[in-house]
Amino acid sequence: MTLRIAEIFGPTIQGEGVLIGEPTVFVRAGGCDYRCSWCDSLHAVDSENRHSWAAMQTEAVWEEVQRLSGGQPLTVSLSGGNPAIQDFGPLIGLGRAAGYRFACETQGSLARPWFAALDTLVLSPKPPSSGEKVDWEAFDACRQAGAGARQQVMKIVIFDQADYDWAREVHSRHPDLPLYLQPGNPEVDPTVPVDLQALADRLRWLTEKAMADRWFAARILPQLHVLIWGNKRGV
Amino acid sequence: MTLRIAEIFGPTIQGEGVLIGEPTVFVRAGGCDYRCSWCDSLHAVDSENRHSWAAMQTEAVWEEVQRLSGGQPLTVSLSGGNPAIQDFGPLIGLGRAAGYRFACETQGSLARPWFAALDTLVLSPKPPSSGEKVDWEAFDACRQAGAGARQQVMKIVIFDQADYDWAREVHSRHPDLPLYLQPGNPEVDPTVPVDLQALADRLRWLTEKAMADRWFAARILPQLHVLIWGNKRGV
Repeated sequence: MTLRIAEIFGPTIQGEGVLIGEPTVFVRAGGCDYRCSWCDSLHAVDSENRHSWAAMQTEAVWEEVQRLSGGQPLTVSLSGGNPAIQDFGPLIGLGRAAGYRFACETQGSLARPWFAALDTLVLSPKPPSSGEKVDWEAFDACRQAGAGARQQVMKIVIFDQADYDWAREVHSRHPDLPLYLQPGNPEVDPTVPVDLQALADRLRWLTEKAMADRWFAARILPQLHVLIWGNKRGV
Repeated sequence: MTLRIAEIFGPTIQGEGVLIGEPTVFVRAGGCDYRCSWCDSLHAVDSENRHSWAAMQTEAVWEEVQRLSGGQPLTVSLSGGNPAIQDFGPLIGLGRAAGYRFACETQGSLARPWFAALDTLVLSPKPPSSGEKVDWEAFDACRQAGAGARQQVMKIVIFDQADYDWAREVHSRHPDLPLYLQPGNPEVDPTVPVDLQALADRLRWLTEKAMADRWFAARILPQLHVLIWGNKRGV
């Protein structure tokens, strides 16, 4: 099985969502069926960067995960791009046999049988500010495919009021999916230092909005990796 | 039942630990059997502040929680000081009957039967830098008392290498308690603006240390409320 891999890095802590703070090795798949206006991982999305993605066999990816983690089992996060474009089933099989746990983050546009073998499936439908439009039939198929995963959650990035209203509506249709909200990060240039105060202000804005509306259904979390490392890659 | 209450505030997001990001109303109990050198809640600990703690009936506390949350069930965090000094059983009973969830954060020095009625018991034994010494028999009694809680976790604050080494040893004796590490915050004066870069640097220090040691057992999380609001009280 040949996989197109944009980067493999870690261990570091997961910066966002349900596994925030969890020691993790990241396997970032190359290629995406979306092109979100504010994408913070264009190096793994834009096909202009295709030349920089490695063609790796599953076994080679697994060896690199083991090398980075020193053979100590931890969580492996499959991200992208959209990792659901490719078949990570064999990698998950190798890793789980050795005690590793697997999480996958995907927008929910492509359902894969291997979702059922995950410990954590994070479905991250993209709000209006992304410029993308969610195919809810495909999303439901992802939920179905992931029904066997240990946990399945939803994460929504919020840039503005329209995104927020959309998230409330999506939650009302999927009340059983634990929901994580994340303030959007408009500063994604890895060469520009991050404005920590602006990051704190965005988290405060979203928190105060949800609390004022007495909307208590979602956890609200920042991106810790941006706090610690700015928009630097590979951390 | 009369309770000594330092403050009741929220809803806001839980800033730390296993429930990070979770909309929460905080009930901060007055009084503590510890006096940690770096305590960030001295207004609820130092008996010099006793005059500022309200003597409230359980029903009055419950009414205030309902008022702040607009009657929408959410998580109530019992903190302090050490909330285990007092009897929060009746408050938990009232709240749970109305669909509210309860978390309690305590150092684990006093076991209470009402721990079993909690959704989340956070045991937070204090490391050497606190100047306190853990009574492990009392800690074990707390674990026992909390065995009926929906979840029981451990949180340890890390200021320095000695704290870190201690946390590793404690974890080796309690490997089944999910562990959360939190870099210590030496800036606790509510009148002094927080240094966001220093906060990010402390999180990075602890993350890099654990990753270099390939110690993947603990989640590593900052205090979000300090990031958002500095050391201001009541948020």
